[in-house]
This record gives sequence, C-alpha cells and structure tokens, in this order.
Amino acid sequence: MADVLTFGEIMLRLQPVGYKRIMQAEQYEAVYGGGEANVAVSLAQMGEDVAFLTRLPDNAVADKCVKELRGWGVDTSCILRGGNRMGIYFCEKGAGPRGSNVIYDRAGSSFSEIAVSDMDLSVLGGCKWLHFTGITPAVSDSAAEAAEHLLKAAKDRGVTVSCDLNYRAKLWSREKACKVMTRLLKYVDVLISNEEDCKDVFNLSADGSNILSGELSAEGYALLARKMQAKFPNISQVAFTLRESLSASVNNWSGMLVDKDGCHVSRKYTINIVDRVGGGDSFGAGLIYALRHGRRGEEAISFAVAASAIKHTIEGDFNIASVAEIDKLSKGDGSGRVQR
Amino acid sequence: MADVLTFGEIMLRLQPVGYKRIMQAEQYEAVYGGGEANVAVSLAQMGEDVAFLTRLPDNAVADKCVKELRGWGVDTSCILRGGNRMGIYFCEKGAGPRGSNVIYDRAGSSFSEIAVSDMDLSVLGGCKWLHFTGITPAVSDSAAEAAEHLLKAAKDRGVTVSCDLNYRAKLWSREKACKVMTRLLKYVDVLISNEEDCKDVFNLSADGSNILSGELSAEGYALLARKMQAKFPNISQVAFTLRESLSASVNNWSGMLVDKDGCHVSRKYTINIVDRVGGGDSFGAGLIYALRHGRRGEEAISFAVAASAIKHTIEGDFNIASVAEIDKLSKGDGSGRVQR
Amino acid sequence: MADVLTFGEIMLRLQPVGYKRIMQAEQYEAVYGGGEANVAVSLAQMGEDVAFLTRLPDNAVADKCVKELRGWGVDTSCILRGGNRMGIYFCEKGAGPRGSNVIYDRAGSSFSEIAVSDMDLSVLGGCKWLHFTGITPAVSDSAAEAAEHLLKAAKDRGVTVSCDLNYRAKLWSREKACKVMTRLLKYVDVLISNEEDCKDVFNLSADGSNILSGELSAEGYALLARKMQAKFPNISQVAFTLRESLSASVNNWSGMLVDKDGCHVSRKYTINIVDRVGGGDSFGAGLIYALRHGRRGEEAISFAVAASAIKHTIEGDFNIASVAEIDKLSKGDGSGRVQR
Amino acid sequence: MADVLTFGEIMLRLQPVGYKRIMQAEQYEAVYGGGEANVAVSLAQMGEDVAFLTRLPDNAVADKCVKELRGWGVDTSCILRGGNRMGIYFCEKGAGPRGSNVIYDRAGSSFSEIAVSDMDLSVLGGCKWLHFTGITPAVSDSAAEAAEHLLKAAKDRGVTVSCDLNYRAKLWSREKACKVMTRLLKYVDVLISNEEDCKDVFNLSADGSNILSGELSAEGYALLARKMQAKFPNISQVAFTLRESLSASVNNWSGMLVDKDGCHVSRKYTINIVDRVGGGDSFGAGLIYALRHGRRGEEAISFAVAASAIKHTIEGDFNIASVAEIDKLSKGDGSGRVQR
Amino acid sequence: MADVLTFGEIMLRLQPVGYKRIMQAEQYEAVYGGGEANVAVSLAQMGEDVAFLTRLPDNAVADKCVKELRGWGVDTSCILRGGNRMGIYFCEKGAGPRGSNVIYDRAGSSFSEIAVSDMDLSVLGGCKWLHFTGITPAVSDSAAEAAEHLLKAAKDRGVTVSCDLNYRAKLWSREKACKVMTRLLKYVDVLISNEEDCKDVFNLSADGSNILSGELSAEGYALLARKMQAKFPNISQVAFTLRESLSASVNNWSGMLVDKDGCHVSRKYTINIVDRVGGGDSFGAGLIYALRHGRRGEEAISFAVAASAIKHTIEGDFNIASVAEIDKLSKGDGSGRVQR
Amino acid sequence: MADVLTFGEIMLRLQPVGYKRIMQAEQYEAVYGGGEANVAVSLAQMGEDVAFLTRLPDNAVADKCVKELRGWGVDTSCILRGGNRMGIYFCEKGAGPRGSNVIYDRAGSSFSEIAVSDMDLSVLGGCKWLHFTGITPAVSDSAAEAAEHLLKAAKDRGVTVSCDLNYRAKLWSREKACKVMTRLLKYVDVLISNEEDCKDVFNLSADGSNILSGELSAEGYALLARKMQAKFPNISQVAFTLRESLSASVNNWSGMLVDKDGCHVSRKYTINIVDRVGGGDSFGAGLIYALRHGRRGEEAISFAVAASAIKHTIEGDFNIASVAEIDKLSKGDGSGRVQR
Repeated sequence: MADVLTFGEIMLRLQPVGYKRIMQAEQYEAVYGGGEANVAVSLAQMGEDVAFLTRLPDNAVADKCVKELRGWGVDTSCILRGGNRMGIYFCEKGAGPRGSNVIYDRAGSSFSEIAVSDMDLSVLGGCKWLHFTGITPAVSDSAAEAAEHLLKAAKDRGVTVSCDLNYRAKLWSREKACKVMTRLLKYVDVLISNEEDCKDVFNLSADGSNILSGELSAEGYALLARKMQAKFPNISQVAFTLRESLSASVNNWSGMLVDKDGCHVSRKYTINIVDRVGGGDSFGAGLIYALRHGRRGEEAISFAVAASAIKHTIEGDFNIASVAEIDKLSKGDGSGRVQR
Repeated sequence: MADVLTFGEIMLRLQPVGYKRIMQAEQYEAVYGGGEANVAVSLAQMGEDVAFLTRLPDNAVADKCVKELRGWGVDTSCILRGGNRMGIYFCEKGAGPRGSNVIYDRAGSSFSEIAVSDMDLSVLGGCKWLHFTGITPAVSDSAAEAAEHLLKAAKDRGVTVSCDLNYRAKLWSREKACKVMTRLLKYVDVLISNEEDCKDVFNLSADGSNILSGELSAEGYALLARKMQAKFPNISQVAFTLRESLSASVNNWSGMLVDKDGCHVSRKYTINIVDRVGGGDSFGAGLIYALRHGRRGEEAISFAVAASAIKHTIEGDFNIASVAEIDKLSKGDGSGRVQR
Repeated sequence: MADVLTFGEIMLRLQPVGYKRIMQAEQYEAVYGGGEANVAVSLAQMGEDVAFLTRLPDNAVADKCVKELRGWGVDTSCILRGGNRMGIYFCEKGAGPRGSNVIYDRAGSSFSEIAVSDMDLSVLGGCKWLHFTGITPAVSDSAAEAAEHLLKAAKDRGVTVSCDLNYRAKLWSREKACKVMTRLLKYVDVLISNEEDCKDVFNLSADGSNILSGELSAEGYALLARKMQAKFPNISQVAFTLRESLSASVNNWSGMLVDKDGCHVSRKYTINIVDRVGGGDSFGAGLIYALRHGRRGEEAISFAVAASAIKHTIEGDFNIASVAEIDKLSKGDGSGRVQR
Repeated sequence: MADVLTFGEIMLRLQPVGYKRIMQAEQYEAVYGGGEANVAVSLAQMGEDVAFLTRLPDNAVADKCVKELRGWGVDTSCILRGGNRMGIYFCEKGAGPRGSNVIYDRAGSSFSEIAVSDMDLSVLGGCKWLHFTGITPAVSDSAAEAAEHLLKAAKDRGVTVSCDLNYRAKLWSREKACKVMTRLLKYVDVLISNEEDCKDVFNLSADGSNILSGELSAEGYALLARKMQAKFPNISQVAFTLRESLSASVNNWSGMLVDKDGCHVSRKYTINIVDRVGGGDSFGAGLIYALRHGRRGEEAISFAVAASAIKHTIEGDFNIASVAEIDKLSKGDGSGRVQR
Repeated sequence: MADVLTFGEIMLRLQPVGYKRIMQAEQYEAVYGGGEANVAVSLAQMGEDVAFLTRLPDNAVADKCVKELRGWGVDTSCILRGGNRMGIYFCEKGAGPRGSNVIYDRAGSSFSEIAVSDMDLSVLGGCKWLHFTGITPAVSDSAAEAAEHLLKAAKDRGVTVSCDLNYRAKLWSREKACKVMTRLLKYVDVLISNEEDCKDVFNLSADGSNILSGELSAEGYALLARKMQAKFPNISQVAFTLRESLSASVNNWSGMLVDKDGCHVSRKYTINIVDRVGGGDSFGAGLIYALRHGRRGEEAISFAVAASAIKHTIEGDFNIASVAEIDKLSKGDGSGRVQR
Repeated sequence: MADVLTFGEIMLRLQPVGYKRIMQAEQYEAVYGGGEANVAVSLAQMGEDVAFLTRLPDNAVADKCVKELRGWGVDTSCILRGGNRMGIYFCEKGAGPRGSNVIYDRAGSSFSEIAVSDMDLSVLGGCKWLHFTGITPAVSDSAAEAAEHLLKAAKDRGVTVSCDLNYRAKLWSREKACKVMTRLLKYVDVLISNEEDCKDVFNLSADGSNILSGELSAEGYALLARKMQAKFPNISQVAFTLRESLSASVNNWSGMLVDKDGCHVSRKYTINIVDRVGGGDSFGAGLIYALRHGRRGEEAISFAVAASAIKHTIEGDFNIASVAEIDKLSKGDGSGRVQR
C-alpha cells in the first residue's frame, strides 16, 4: 500500500463558467474535489506515493472521478464502490466584495453512508502518514465512526496523523463539532487550522486578530497554538494559514508553524485569485510533504505557504504544482515573470 | 388560477457538451426538465395560460429553475418551496447505435418528500385541464399520494385529466407501477402512451409490432387502445406516439389517436435528432392544445405529432415551438427550407 | 398594475467573449440591457412588484428579451410590440488603461419610434414610483415626448418620480440635453447623477473634484446638489455616485445622498471589476428600494452603494443581488470570504 | 484593379451556437456574409484576383468585416466607408423538419443608403467580370440605382456580367422585384437561378417539378431556361441549382447549365448539412471560375455543383474550398474518406 | 508487468472545434491518440491489464498525455521519457462529401528517435499479447528497428502478436512499407487489415470490391486473407474491417474474420458518425479482447465490430466502451433508444 | 514594396483556455505570433505600409497564419513557402506568483531551415526601415546567416535598422548570443532592450536596479545605454522597457529612450494584465512609428509606452491599437472609463 493515505469525501464540483452566478448558469465547469482528495492529488504531484480512501457509487459520474484521481497519480485501488450518489457542491465564484458561495448537495451520498464494517484496515499496511479533515466526521455520524475506527488503527500501527480542522457551518453545529473533534484530535500529531476554525470548534481565538478587518496578530496565533497543544498534548506541531481577505479577488496569504522550536512565520503573498477553493488543502499537502522530507520549521512553513500561494492561481480544487515550482517560489522569485 | 395545471417533478439536467460521454465531461450544459414541466412550457409557447405545481428547495439552483419556467411564461406562483435538494439527472447524448443514457440523482429531492398536507387545492380554482405523468407517482409513495389527492379533487371539480403513462424502469418495478397506476388511471380522461409503457405497466401489447426492429402495426395499437379503455372506461381518448428508432441519430416518428370516432393515424416524419428528450412530452402538450381548441381526430393527432417532430430538433427538454410553426409543418411543409 | 414602473429602451447587448476586442470577435455574449430595464430587474430581485414599459419589435430577438425580463420577475405585460428592430449595442470590455467601448446601433429602433399615441396611461394605475433616465429622451424626439406625456400623468396622479441624469454623448448634444432635461426634471422628486452628468448637461460642477485624476470633493458635491435643487425646487433628494476610475480593472466606488437632513456619504469600496455596465442603474435601484422601504439618509445611501458595488462583480447589465446580500455587505462584511 | 468585381451588401451574421434557437441564445457566432461577398471570397480561394465593392460604416464592427475579407484574399481597397450601421442578419439553424430561419435587421444600413454619386467607376478599370445578385437592388431604391449605374458602365466596357436572381420575400414584393430585375437583367450574360426565383420574380416555372415534394424535372428546367433567354436575349447561359430539401439536415443537390450547346446536368449529391447558407453563392463562384478558365458545359456545371456541395459542409457563409479539392470531388471521390 | 502490451507513437491531436476547418480555427480541441495507444485504452476500458510502451519528451504537453493514459487505466510505468517533442497531428473533421483531413507534424518526435538501446525487454515479463500497427515502423527507421527488436523478443517468449497493417501514405512509400512489413509480419499471429492496406502494402486486392463505390465482396476478402496467409504462414487469423463510406457523415461498417474454421462475417451497421478516427483501433481492441477471452469466429468478429461501431459515436481517438455496452449492441439492440 | 519590413519567425501559439495549465488543457486557443510579426501587425494597425518576411510550410496551418497577417493589413506577398512545419509554442498563462510558462516546439521549423539562397533582396526595394529581434538569429545558424545577409544589404541601401535584443535562454547560450549579436548589432541604428537582455547577452547591467525586487534605476539605465553605444557606435538611439513585475497579474510598465538629446523617461502605468506576451514587441512598433513620424525624445517614448501598455490588455501576441487610442492614453486619459 501507499506511504500516505488520506480519507474523506470527494464531490462533484459544479461551477458556473467564469463569474456567472448560479442564477445565470447555462453551463457548469465540472471538476472533483474534497479536502482529503485535494491533499492526495497535491502530494502525488510532488512525487509522493499516496492513496485516497473514500466511498463512491457505481456510476459514470463516479467513474470519471476515479479516472481523474488516477490520472493525477493517486492510488485509487482502495476506493469502495456502493451507495446511491456522489456528493455534489455548487460553487459560485466571487469577486471584489462578493464572496464565493457554496451550495452543498451531499445528503445521502455514498460516503455519508460509509460504515465501520466497510473499512478494510489493510489499507494501512505500509502506511506512514494518515491525513483527514474536520469535514469527514461532519458528513454523517457513520462517517465520523469510520474515521475514528481508522484513526485508532493508524495510531496503533504508529502512523503519523495530520488533521485539518476545517469547520463547515453548513454541515454541523459548533457544539457537535466540538464534541466529535475533541474525540478525534487525540489521535493527531500535526494540526492544521486557522483562527476561524479554532474559534468555531473550540471557542479559542488568536487575540489581537480581526478576520473581517484583516488584522492578524502573530503573537495571538502562537498563543492559540499553545492552547490547542495544552488541550491535546499529542499534537506536536500546529500550523495556521493566515488569510487576509482584502476582497474575493485579492488576498494576502501567509502561514505560521508552531513546533517545539518555536513559532515560524512565513513571508506574505498578495495574490490575485484565480480559484481559492482548495487553498487550505494545498497548504496541508505542502506541509506534509515538507515534514516527510526532513524540512523543518521555517523551511517547512515556507514550502507549505508557497505551495498554497500557487494553488490560488490554479483552476479547480487540486494543486497542480511540482516541488521544483514551489521551491522556486519559496526561495524567492515571486515576480511572476514569463519563463522562456 | 391558470386554465391548465401540470403537476410533477422538475430536475436539473446535466448533459456533457456535444457528444461527450460523462466519463469525458469537463463541462455540463445545465437545463431543467421533467415530464409535466415540459408540457407546461410547451403549452405556454402555444399561448395557453398554464401553471406548474411542484416542490423545490430554497436555493439558487432552484431559483434559476423558477426563473426559466417563469421566463417561458409558465405561472410559477403555486410552486412550493422546501426540502433539501433538486432532483438531478445526468444525460449522455447518444448517436448511431449508442443510445442516450440517463443517470438519475433524484433520491431525497424536495419533490419526493412532498406530502398531501402540502397540497393547497385552491390551485384548481378555475382550472380546466390537469396533466400528470406516470413518473410523478414513481418518484415516491408520498408523491403518489399527493398525486392521487390532487386527481380526486380535480375530478370532483370536473377538470379534464390527461396522463402520460411514461414507465421509468430506473424508478420503480413493473408490479408497483401496475398497482399504483391502476389506482390513478381511473381519474383520467385522456391517456397518452406508447407500446413499451402499456406493456411494461399493464402487460398489454400492440400485436404485430416489434420495437427493436422498428415494425409498428396500426391495427395492433388500435386494439391496444381498446383494451386500455376496457380496463378504464373513464378514458375517452387514447393517443400513442409511434417511434421507430432507426438509431439514436435518426428516428421515424408518428402517432395515433383512438377516440369514439375511430383510429386516426398521422403522417410519419424521419427526423435527424438534435435532442429527443421531451419528445413525448411535447406530443402530450400538442394533443392537449389541440383538444382544448376544438381540433379533433386527425387534426389533433397531426398537430401533436408535428409539434413533437419539431421538438426533436430543439435543444433541451422544452419544446419552444409556436402554434404557427406547428401548423405550418402539420399542413405540409416539412422540407426544412430556409425562411428568408 | 405594479407598484413601480420604469420606462425606457432595452437593447440587445453584444459583447465579445472575455477581453477580446470587436476586431477579434468570433462570438458575442448576448444579454439585454438598458438603464430603466436594469433598474426594474434589480428591483424585482429585491422583491419589488415592478413593471417595465418599452416598445419592442415582434420577432424572436425581442421575444427572448421579454423572456429574460419575465424570468427575472419583471411584469412585462405592458410592453408594446411594433416597429422594425431592437436597438443593439456592441460593448468591448476594457482592462487596465483601456476603457470599455460602446458602439450604439440603435437608430430606427422600435422604441425610438414610440409615439405619444402608443402610450396607454392605465399602466400608471396603482403605480407609486416611476423611474426614467436621461437616455430615454435622448433616443429620439418622439421618445422624449412620450416620456414627458408619461411624467406629466404620473405627477398628476401623485406618483413619486426618480430620474438618473445619465448623459450619453453619442446620442445627443449637450445643448439639446440641457433643453430637454430642463423640461423633464420639473416632474422629478429624486435625482441621481454624477459629476460628469451635471457638468455635461447643465454645466454645473463639483468644485474641487477632478474626474480623470480621481480626486473627489465631498463638499463640492454637496454644493452641486444644492445648485440642482435651486434650479429644480421639486427635487427633494439628490444622490451622486462617486467613481474613481483607477483603471478599467479597478475602481473606487462610493456615493452621497443630499436630502433635507444634509449630506450623507457612504463608505468607499475598491472593486476588481467583472462588469461595470449597469453600475449606476443598480445604484438607482438600490436607492429606490431603500427610500420605498423607509430607509433614510446614511442607511439609504449605504444600501444603494453596496448594491451597486456588488453589481460591478456580476456579468451583464442586471444586478442579480438580493436584499440579504446587499445588507450583509452594507453592514460590514466586505471581505469576500467563501460562504460554506 | 481586380479581374473580377462583385457588388452588394455584406452583413454581420449572428447565429446561436449549435442548434440553439434565438429564444435560447446566450451566445452568437459572429461571421460576415452576403451574396456577392460570398462569391468574392469563394473566388479568392480559387486563386482569382477579385475585389468586392460595398459600403460600410466607419466602426469596429465593419473594420472586422474588412479584416475578414482581406484575410481571405479579397481586394477591399474599393470599399466605401460611411453611413450609420452594418446590416445584420440573425440566423437560426434548422434541423430535420424545422427549417433555418433568418431575421433581417438591415434597414438603414450604410449600403442601403449608397448613392449613385458614391460610385467611382474606376473600379471597373481592368475588370473582366462583374457579379451581382437580386438581393442588391432589393435592399433599397438607391442601391438598385447604384447597381444599374454600375451595370451600364460595365456593359459599356465590355465586362461579362453574371447575376444570381435570388429573390428574398422579406425584402421586396414580387411585383417590385419583377419590375426592377427586368430592367437589370438586360445587362446580364450569365444568369443563375433556381425554380423558386424564376417563379417568384417572373412567374415562370419548371413544369413537372414540385419543390416541396422534391420532384425535379430536368426537361422542365431546360424549358424554363429557354423562356428566360427568350425574355432576355442577352443572356447566353442559364444555370440552375436544383435542391431537393429532404429536410433541413439532408438535401439532395445538383445543378444544370443551359448554354448554346444544350442542357448539361450534373450528378446529384446527398449531403448531411453543416451550413447551407451561401450554398447558392458558392455555386455561382464555381460557375464563374469554371467559365473564366475555359471549362464549358458539363465540366463547368460539375465544377460549380461540386464546389457548392463542399460549401454545405463548411461553417459560415464563405466557401473555403480550393480548386484542387473541388476537382477531386467533381472527378469522382465523394466517399468522404479520411486523408492521411 | 501487464498481460497485454502495445507499442507505438502517441500524438497530440489538435482538431478545430465542431466542423470548422483549420483555416477557420481559433480554438483546437486537444486530445491524444495513436494506433497502439488507442488499442491500449480501449482494452483497459474492457478491464484488461494493459501497458503502453512509447517514448515521450519531458514536458507538460507529454505529462498531460501520460495523465490521460493513466486516468483511463493504462499502465504507463514503462513509458520512456526523452527527446525533443511530441508528435502532433492536426485533424480537420469532414462532413458529407468532404472527408476528414489529417496534417502530420511528427517529424523529429521523441518516438521517432527511439533506439534499440532504449528498449528494456523486461516489459515483456508476464506479457501474453503484444500489439503494434504498421504506423510504428513507418515513423522512422529507428522505430522500425525497435519494433523488430521487440517483436523478436516477444516471439522468443511465446507472446501472441497482433498487427494492424494500417498503411499511411503520408509517412512512407508503398515500396518501403512492403519491404519493412514483410520483415515484421513474420512475427505476427493475428493480422488486422482492410482492402486498402493489403493493396497499398502488398498489392493484393479483394476481387469484386470497389472502395470508392462502396461495393464489397465477402468472397473477395476471404480469398485475400488466404493470400496473406500463404505469404505469411505464421498468421493464424486475418480480420478485415469493411467500411462503405457513403459520405464522411454516414458509413456502413462491418467486419470479417478468417480463421481455420472459415470466414465469419458480421452484421452491418449504418452509422451517423461523431468521430471516426480510431475506428480501426477499436476494432483491433475488440478482437484482441474477444480472442483473449475465448470468443471465437462469429462471436469474436461480432464483438469487434460492435465495439468499433460504438467508437464511431465517441469523441476522440479512444473507445470508451465497456464490455457490457458492446455485448448489448452485438447481441441485438442497435436501436439507440434512451436508457432510463 | 512596403515602407517597413520585419524579418523573423512566426509561430502557432497554443494556449490553454483561461488560466488552465497545460496539464489541464482540453482546448487550446490558437493564435499566431513572433517578435517581428507582432511588430509588423502593430505597425499595420497604425496605418503603416509594412511587409513581413518569413518562411512557412505549405499547409493549412500556415495558410491560416498568412490569412491572419493579411487580414490585419500586413503585406504577406514576400513570405516564402517551403520546409516541413510551422514552429509552435505552448503558452501557459500565469497569475499572481505563478509566471507564464512557454514551451517551444520550433525545432525543424520551415523558418529555422531558411537559407541565404532563399533570400530575394528585392524585398528591400523601397524599404525605409528594417526591424528584427535577437530571436531570429537564435533560431538556427542558417537563420542567423540569412539575417546578416539581409542586414548587410539593408545597410548598403541606407535602410534604417532597428533591433530588439530579446534574449531567449531556451534557444541559445549567452556565449553564442553574445558572439552572434555582436556581429549583427553593427548594422543597427535603433536598439531596443531591457536590463535582462543586456545583462544576458553582453553582461552589461543597469547599476542600482534589481529585477526580481522590482527596483529600477533611471540613472543606471542611462549609463547602460551609453555603454551599449560605446560598444556599437552605429547605434544612435537606445530604448528600454522597464517592467516591474509585481506579479504575473499586475505589472508596472514604463520606458526610457536615450538619444543624442539625453535620457527621456515615460510615465509609469500599473496594469492588470490580460496578456503580456508581445508587450515588448508593441513597444518596438510604437517606437518605430513615432520615430518614422517625426516624434522625438519624450514624445516618442510616451507613445511607445502607451502603445505597449494597451497591448497588455489585449488577447494574443498582436497589439490591435490605433494611433488615436494610443495618443489618447499617452496624452492623459488612463482612467479606463467607458466610452459611450
């Protein structure tokens, strides 16, 4: 089996062409995406041996999804087939003061009906890193149970576990998220978050920051990380993405990694956005790659932030960036000059 | 309220661009359609005052659907809003020996969860004609109950009722269809069908016909109509669409109307198909229009067949044809010459 | 009849795909738009009961226009059909230092030939607010006469009248505009303008401002409003849109409302522009909605500016924004974050 | 100046993408076309030195038109610029029993306002062949006068003149067409027509033919040609296109040339149509090329029919076919096999 | 390694959108294709374990090609990377009497520079079937040598070898083809051809057939097969595709298999063509699948012809058809009815 | 012959739609471009009589290229036809921190095989200005020889020669560029460059500037110009484009002209980029136009910079801007306001 395994739901993403709103849509761009799948694809582009575990129905819409994942080099051999439908999300691209809007249509999806009894733990054979996000347990109770089952087994086998907290208000309440994530985070070694998530799920904030106004406090985030580690001592590293959303079109983007050596802050990118969905996932993938390849502290956070800065310029959920591209950016050339 | 009311589910139809298969789809054309909505839109183009009753969720995907219906002139004021999602169907356009393929993704739709208690019978106020298809009760038990509730009330008010038998194997079994449709057809005055439907639902065939080979027997269909009328004496008129599917690209298309005066057979059109989905519905709409405007027998079936012949050349579920266009075709000019 | 009526010309807008110039255009996006129609559609999205009065030819190009208006919820029942053609405008989208360019092809349009005798004043029955722009009388002398006829009747019936001054150099001279608008503005209660318009039509400026350099003086605009009210004492409120065009791609956008209570200035938005055509009209619609729903002064101008800020991010002439969206923005969240 | 000159109006053609109807059009394909321009472009592809004379406004929409003509190798140096607008025609592509439909929007075009005083007869310097169609004088009285002025001058200089009769019911009445064309045809050497045109303009028919049913009588057409020559003794050759419109999707296509040696009938092609607009013009161009290059009788008609058979498979008004391609088809290979 | 191996060049195929000619192309559809790659992809859709051996440059254009192959389930692990460029072919889609046209731009491709020393014969480990076409040795002398090297090694290991004769006049002369293919065919067990190929390469014809007129003689083909087997006694089975090209839009399509039991002729399909490129390759894949799964004689040829009949309705070089679809068609349902 | 001649290679440019990466490309936009062709087209839009000399293969892909050049008004009569293929370049559009990327596929192109013996020097008859770039000699040794041959003849005839230094690292080494360009620059009167080029080719820098950080020193560039003139005393004017690449989406753009009167610096534009390829060429064309029409010093550099600022907002390699548009911008209105 693969070195890295990610587990979660992948959906068909339907987005009106260009900046059309759903009310104006005569055609939809159809791509596939989901937090853990995005991480898997991104890692595959970096050369990692990575598998994605999910559950999909047995129809052409899902076959196309598997074709895409396989095409990008993800091991799809452990994907379960069954159930009634793929989850779908409609995504309306924002601009300026109008934010992107997501309409979930994922109730009753094959993944939401995954059962512990579906889980074949042999997928963990040889696995060294397992990644999931807070979206997975939010999908359904049975998905949460399956996740817990898998996490426990992974921990038993000494697999490193990373989690992107990723709170989704349209999927579950803060109360439920807090209860379930508290249970799951005790299996986690590396936590990825942002201020919103910690606030939403655990009511913990980065003092001195104001998301809507775009003010971010490095000190506040470092303190927040320590609070999370106090709550979950198993967590050895906490990484934050720091987004200053100047508008839906232009964002400042940076990150911070808090580990035993202290708090490492990346440079900040001002980005004209092509597609920001999957930005956080590409950060997670960059971080996993960096940590798995001996990059630490500042080097790790620089790589993760550069990877995700590039993602914001790429259409679709997946970050199609190579290690060479990311290194070139993180090591200094952000001028966006033509290569010829 | 409107003169004509149709009742059923309308779905988002997602179809890969051109002849792409779903496995190749990077973009989907997005239109809306469903048997009874198609009839309503078609009637509105003919100038009829027509309302469509359905249940839709409260989101932008459904708002766009309402916008389209309203744009085409259908009265949407009685549409119920609630529930979780719009039904979706993926449609892969066939060609030559490869038939079009439909993947339904309509489980858990707002319409499937419609309840008798949702039904406000005041929509029948002033209504003179009610139309539904065999798809409506196939969607769910509660939809079947709502349909029966509405039909009963319509009958009580002296509304003329038409039904397109429309068997969908992907929605229910033949046994269940037979049981439920037997209950509903007793409210029906005008039955629309084809050989497949009668065979599938009631195990009644048009002797002498063979669908796959394309041989159709007029006598067989006349006899079949009489059998249906024997079973349901309330049915005063039976109309059949007669499709000889030479291939997914070229069809012969004609129709037959059996009424008290006998059996009226239309001329036959050989059609290079642009989009055959909704062909039967446009026939139903043509027939309803004709019958409501004093056209009888051969005149009625000619109009209905011409209307639906034109539909096969129009993209989407809806038949965007005017009475003038249909009359021009049914009265003789099928040469397809340029009008300039 | 509807609560609000708008009166003017609607045209077919043909715009090359993306940033292509007309000289490069192989395909045109086809939408419909015109000052007063844009206001009507925008108001309909806010839930207003609004009708649009115009004159269109009897062909499919105009039928499609009516379908769109009706789809967006505008009452089209009073639209007159007749004449030879729809007005057309070709619109080339600008970027950076290259401004958008408009080529009018509206001579001989059905609307330009509208006559006073075509006007059925029963459209004012129940009407509480009438809106027109300075484009309407610029189209033709007969359109100007029809407008005056309608305005007079509206005034007689106590209808509130708003006017967007909207000078179009490609349609008439400053001298003629001054003469005609002087006649029409005496029926107006609410005037919408910008510095360019007042300067172009009445040779009145906002001292201290420089449009090309982007410097705007609040005091200057307040004074300008007072000058206009001095000239037309019937005008109780004057609203200005304040555009600082940094480039065709990025604009600063704010507004000001001068009423009996003083001068109310909105916050300023920096907007990456998707489509700025119709920006002023969406401001007008926002203002009408606000004033009709008891919002006054700062609250009114905030709503109008937020509405039109969103418009700049929407393709086409029409502002497809709901009251909820606009309120969310005007009350503070302009970060453009993803909603999920 | 060029060897061949054609004179007439060229319009912007707007056609909904694919088989969409105008009522469904969100995008239009934009090409340019008009009878005489089509002939000029087709001749240029055959290597002829050909100029096109028309009048166009001075804007980007017309600049693009000139760019296209020049790109295809037509000499555009004599095109007059002035007036207000380009003529436009909306074209809805038909299929099966639904014919294509054309909506003209050409009133007030720059060409329609061409005056005899605009005509600089030096364009005839070196000219050996002049071509026009019956559409030119139908556009306006002044266009008819300009045409007559040019024809007369051409005749005086010994230029060969060809005319495609091309009756357009949407432009003028049969009575007026008869009167004007009677005047113009006396300058013509080569007449191109079809049964409809002769019938519409001169009330002369090909006995034994029935257009709607598709029956064509060779003898009838030969006789019709002789009748035309009796009426206009200056006409030395008459060519007919013979279209059997099985449907808008499939046509039989052949032609006939009647000259002093008798009546030459081409083979008949059954064509799946891509775009039939300009089919007649490509026939005219093929005939002119053939006659100018010493091909006579059967050889000439074979070439003209093969040229126009190919045109039916090409998008847009223009026939982009080389002499080599046409010869290959006319000399036998109509199998449509892949060339590789 | 995989059960089946195919060896050859894959190219980027650039085709103008729709029926546009290259002279009209503003956009190209970009897919990838090549005889042996097409067979590999088709076999993968049938569930076969298949690898494709080729040589590609190390750039993004080739990376995308590998992504596609891998996505479709082909084992790409043995693809060699190196050299300067991917071969490209421009493909202009024909219609009616105008055949599709191919412009090769493959000189200097990475594959054309493949050397025997590049060939790692371990790719044959576990391999049971090897497929190539006559295009491979036509690409370059070194490609021919590499092919011979591989064939010899395959034969030594007892691998079954199939060859599609596939003569390409634009790549080599008949003389050279005869000389080289005579050398290579002695390693072949299953030969796939059509009359043109045998005629072009070996000057052997199916008497009684006429390709351009579309007359095909079954007896003639049987005799032709026997002639080929006389020349190459190692060939145990000869299959022919029989194309009657009525036009570029409509073809009759059937096949014949000559084996030790005699001559097996399939039914004939009349096909409205979506994309006929790759039709022969899909036939080859169908035949290989059938023979590898114990289908013999009539059953095998029926499957191969049905598979390739479906291919003609699918965009791109690849046949995206499952065994179930093919069986459904070959066992009788060619009506192209909607599946719902 | 024409007043201005440019000499170089033109390629087919294939660019994925929108911001898609090559790995995601299903469709490519197809335009044509190359340094000297871009200058020719740009000059033609300014009304110059300009010819382009290149060598192209004899196929439809190149025919389309000639059609485009001719359409834009460039004299194509001296284009040589022969050889095997057009050069191609794949261009992936960048955004934010991700720069555009170019993959050249031009080896073996018809132009690269141009020979001195192909050169017909009569193209210089009447020629007053010759322009080439450093790309031409980089293509191949024979192209460098042909260039030198032409330059020498031009110099002999007193033609003014301009050269854009344009170093392309993907085509040749710095050493070779230095050697060859040293030979060619001795024929040059006007040199166009930027800091990178002078540094790359001659190892001469503008002290005080840092390209990646975006700091530019006017004094440094003036000094650099003087160094170049010291090296090549024949160079009378040196112009620099000064690009500060804030990101691939936003650039600052200005220029400088050093002539006998001193150093003239233009204003600086901040540009949201639509397509920056060809930016330098449009600057060159602007400069040539200005110098040929008596504009000197500041006026010349203002015109050249304004021209190229507009180019950055236009799709494709070619600058489709008129003198009027450029003058309007260079004389002050850079607000990008709508013109209507």
